[in-house]
Amino acid sequence: MEFEKYNGLGNDFIFIDGTGEAVELTPQQVGFLCDRHFGIGADGVIVVRKADGADGYMHYINSDGSLAQMCGNGVRCFAKYLVDHGMVDASSGRLLAMTLAGPRPIAFDVDDEGKMTVATVEMGQPILEPAEVPCLLPGASLGRLGTVACEQAIDSPWGPFAFTAVSMGNPHAVCFVDNWQALDDGLFTDAERKGLDTLRIDEVGAWYESHGAFPQKTNVEFAEVTPEGVRMRVFERGCGETLACGTGACATAVAACLTGRAERAVTVSLKGGALAIEWGEDGVVRMTGPAAFAFSGTIQL
Amino acid sequence: MEFEKYNGLGNDFIFIDGTGEAVELTPQQVGFLCDRHFGIGADGVIVVRKADGADGYMHYINSDGSLAQMCGNGVRCFAKYLVDHGMVDASSGRLLAMTLAGPRPIAFDVDDEGKMTVATVEMGQPILEPAEVPCLLPGASLGRLGTVACEQAIDSPWGPFAFTAVSMGNPHAVCFVDNWQALDDGLFTDAERKGLDTLRIDEVGAWYESHGAFPQKTNVEFAEVTPEGVRMRVFERGCGETLACGTGACATAVAACLTGRAERAVTVSLKGGALAIEWGEDGVVRMTGPAAFAFSGTIQL
Repeated sequence: MEFEKYNGLGNDFIFIDGTGEAVELTPQQVGFLCDRHFGIGADGVIVVRKADGADGYMHYINSDGSLAQMCGNGVRCFAKYLVDHGMVDASSGRLLAMTLAGPRPIAFDVDDEGKMTVATVEMGQPILEPAEVPCLLPGASLGRLGTVACEQAIDSPWGPFAFTAVSMGNPHAVCFVDNWQALDDGLFTDAERKGLDTLRIDEVGAWYESHGAFPQKTNVEFAEVTPEGVRMRVFERGCGETLACGTGACATAVAACLTGRAERAVTVSLKGGALAIEWGEDGVVRMTGPAAFAFSGTIQL
Repeated sequence: MEFEKYNGLGNDFIFIDGTGEAVELTPQQVGFLCDRHFGIGADGVIVVRKADGADGYMHYINSDGSLAQMCGNGVRCFAKYLVDHGMVDASSGRLLAMTLAGPRPIAFDVDDEGKMTVATVEMGQPILEPAEVPCLLPGASLGRLGTVACEQAIDSPWGPFAFTAVSMGNPHAVCFVDNWQALDDGLFTDAERKGLDTLRIDEVGAWYESHGAFPQKTNVEFAEVTPEGVRMRVFERGCGETLACGTGACATAVAACLTGRAERAVTVSLKGGALAIEWGEDGVVRMTGPAAFAFSGTIQL
C-alpha cells in the first residue's frame, strides 16, 4: 500500500489516497501503521476521500482505530495534501474540507512551486456552557457569556488545582501555572523549580483525564503566559503528552482570554512549534499554522 | 533519497544503500531522518557499504550523528538486508558482517521465499575487569575469572543501589530488583509496588549514566529473574529508555550468570520482545533473535 507522511508542528499523519478504490483498515492495521518502532509511525491515519459540496473528506482514524471528529493540525495537512496534489485551485487560496465534525473553511498560502505553506482554519465557536463541554462542575456567571465553565479549583492529590473547561468540539481542561506554588512537591521533577518544564505531566494528565467531573474524559492543557504570548504543554485524551494539539491551542487561547490573561489574538507556543490563534468578534476561533510533507513510501499490510 | 526501514525487537533503523555512490550525511541530516515526528523516525541510520573479506560493512550512525561501534539488534537487521537483497548466498546460512568493532560471524535462517527470519550473532567475550569496562569501583575476586566488577552497591539519592558492571564493547551497569524494597519510595510511581514496572527509569537511568564511577558513562539495565528467564528494561547511554538493546541483553545475561541468578543460556525478555542469549564455555556470547523489514520510501534531504 502506498502512503505519504505529513505533519503539523510534529503532530504527524499517514495519508492514504481513498479517492479511487475504497480503503478499509482494521484497528489492528491502523495500530501497526501508527507504531513508531514496528510500523511507519504516526499520531493517526488520514484517508482522503471525495466529498459532495466540498473539496475533500478527511477520514481521520486515531492510532487505536477509533474515528476522530476533527484534528486541527491534521486538517492543515489535509489542506496541503489537496493543494499539493492539484485537487483544488491553488491560486484561489481557499478550500472547504469536510470532516466528521462538519465543514471547515480554510484559507492558505502557497510557495513559488504552488505547494501549500501555511493555512488558516475556521475552528468554529468554543463551547463554554459546562453541561455541554461536558464538565459537571457548576462554572461561573460571566455576564454576556452566561454561565461558563471558567476557572475554578478541583481537589487533586496534589492540592487544589485550578482549571477552565472549554470544548472545541472535544473537551479541554486548561490549567495556568500562576498558582502552582501551593501544589505538592511530588508533582514536579524538581521541587525548587515548580513550573511547566518540571511538571510530571503524564501523572497529572492521566488523573485529570479520568476525573469524574469529565463524563467524556478530557484533554488537558498546562499553560503559562509569556511576553510572546502563551506557552503550553498538552496531554491528549487516550494518548498522553504530544508535541502539539490544534484544538488544545485554541481552547488555551480562549481560556487565557476568558480569564483576562491574553487578548483575543495570541501566539500559542507548543513543543512542536507555534500557532497564531484568534478568537474573532464573531465568536469563531481561527487557527493559523504550517503543514509539512515528510516522505512517501510503500508498506505491506 | 531512497531508504528502507528495519527493526529488531522494535529497535529500528533506516537503511541506505551505500554500495554504489558514497553516501555522506551531516549530523543535522541524520537527526532529521531519525526524528519520529518531523522525519522518518529511527534509533539510527545504517549505511550499507562493501567490505574486503566480509559480506558487507555496517556503517552505523546514531541519531545524534556520532558513530556506533556495534549494535546487536542493528547487526541482525544488517544481516537481513544482505540476505534479502541477494548480497549473500541464502542457502549457506552464514555470513560475516564487518563493523567498527570488528568482524561479527552470523548464522541465519530463511523462510520459504529465501528471506531471513532469525539470526544468531557472535557478540564476542564480555569484558569484566573493572578498569576495562570502564568502572572505577574495585570489583570482587571471583576465582578463575579474576577480579570482576561484580555486584556491589553504590550510594544513590535513593539509598544503596546494587549493580554489576559488564562491557560488551560498550559499558553496562546491570541492576537486579531483588533488593529494591529498601530504596526510597520516590523512585517508584507506586510505592506499594516497587519493581520493574513502577521504576522511574528515566531518573535513575540518567543518574547512573553520568555517575563519576563510569568515565565513559554507561548504559543501565534493570532486570528481574522470572520462571521464564530474565525480564529487563534498558536505559541507553545518551538516549533514554528503549524497547530493546542487544548488547544490554547480553550484559544482563552475563551478570545474571556471574551472580548465580541464571544458567549460561537464558531467555531475556525486553519491552520489544525476547532474545535467546548463551554465554558459551568458550567465553563468547551468542545472541539469537529476529529481524523485520517494515517499509521502503523516498525522502528529500
